[in-house]
Amino acid sequence: LKGYGNLSGVVILDTGKKSVKGVVRFVQQTPNICIIDGTVDGLNPGKHQISVHECGDLSEGCSSVGSYFNPYTNGSRSVYGNIGCVNAESNGRAAFRIDDNVIKLSEIIGRSFVISDEKNNRLACGIIARSAGLFQNPKKICAC
Amino acid sequence: LKGYGNLSGVVILDTGKKSVKGVVRFVQQTPNICIIDGTVDGLNPGKHQISVHECGDLSEGCSSVGSYFNPYTNGSRSVYGNIGCVNAESNGRAAFRIDDNVIKLSEIIGRSFVISDEKNNRLACGIIARSAGLFQNPKKICAC
Ligand SMILES: [Zn+2]
Ligand SMILES: [Zn+2]
Repeated sequence: LKGYGNLSGVVILDTGKKSVKGVVRFVQQTPNICIIDGTVDGLNPGKHQISVHECGDLSEGCSSVGSYFNPYTNGSRSVYGNIGCVNAESNGRAAFRIDDNVIKLSEIIGRSFVISDEKNNRLACGIIARSAGLFQNPKKICAC
Repeated sequence: LKGYGNLSGVVILDTGKKSVKGVVRFVQQTPNICIIDGTVDGLNPGKHQISVHECGDLSEGCSSVGSYFNPYTNGSRSVYGNIGCVNAESNGRAAFRIDDNVIKLSEIIGRSFVISDEKNNRLACGIIARSAGLFQNPKKICAC
């Protein structure tokens, strides 16, 4: 993953079901590719859905973040914010890297990221925050 | 406060010192006025500083959010993100409304808001998230 100098984001998934925790990073690698790289623990094995929702308002947990984010620029899929599915292994961990050609990180900063089960229950969510580059030097010079 | 139709933001201050909690709302009311309206509890009576920092990365609490946000457009004060001081009353509450003419909400979404004591210790922080309008109708139609 190369992210230095580009916009990057981070989500700490710590709202929602207490047993589900994770971190997801976003890097806008090129104007058309946003890399979404995450690890989520505490899931039931099997398919889960990951999505971007309109708001970053967690005042009522994962229920106050609104619907799928779906601006007019929904690119190559019908719903912009409906990123897709990831699989949790038998140990409860889903680890994924998606090179997404729909999302533009600048459009989703401040909104929320949600992981849901197959019945569409929102298990965990977090705000998509600006972060320093992934391979930033150890002095933590901040360029976000 | 009128915010309907404009960009608005919310910060839940729940990272940092456990006894300090608060909510701050932002509304870009005109191109030049961002209203910052907040209530923070659990403070020692007296002066506190509020500020916007570069990152929204709370992975190491309030210490991973970087320095004051200070882009080239720092307007009428020397440091863009150094909003100013608020006063906590004897009950530990600081309630404030600032009509700020430096901050543009679109520039700070995804970054962080910090309240610090007079010695510059960061007491509490949170990510500046996109929110629905303040006076949104009860159906929660989301326009953020
Ligand atoms: Zn940064
Ligand atoms: Zn909204």
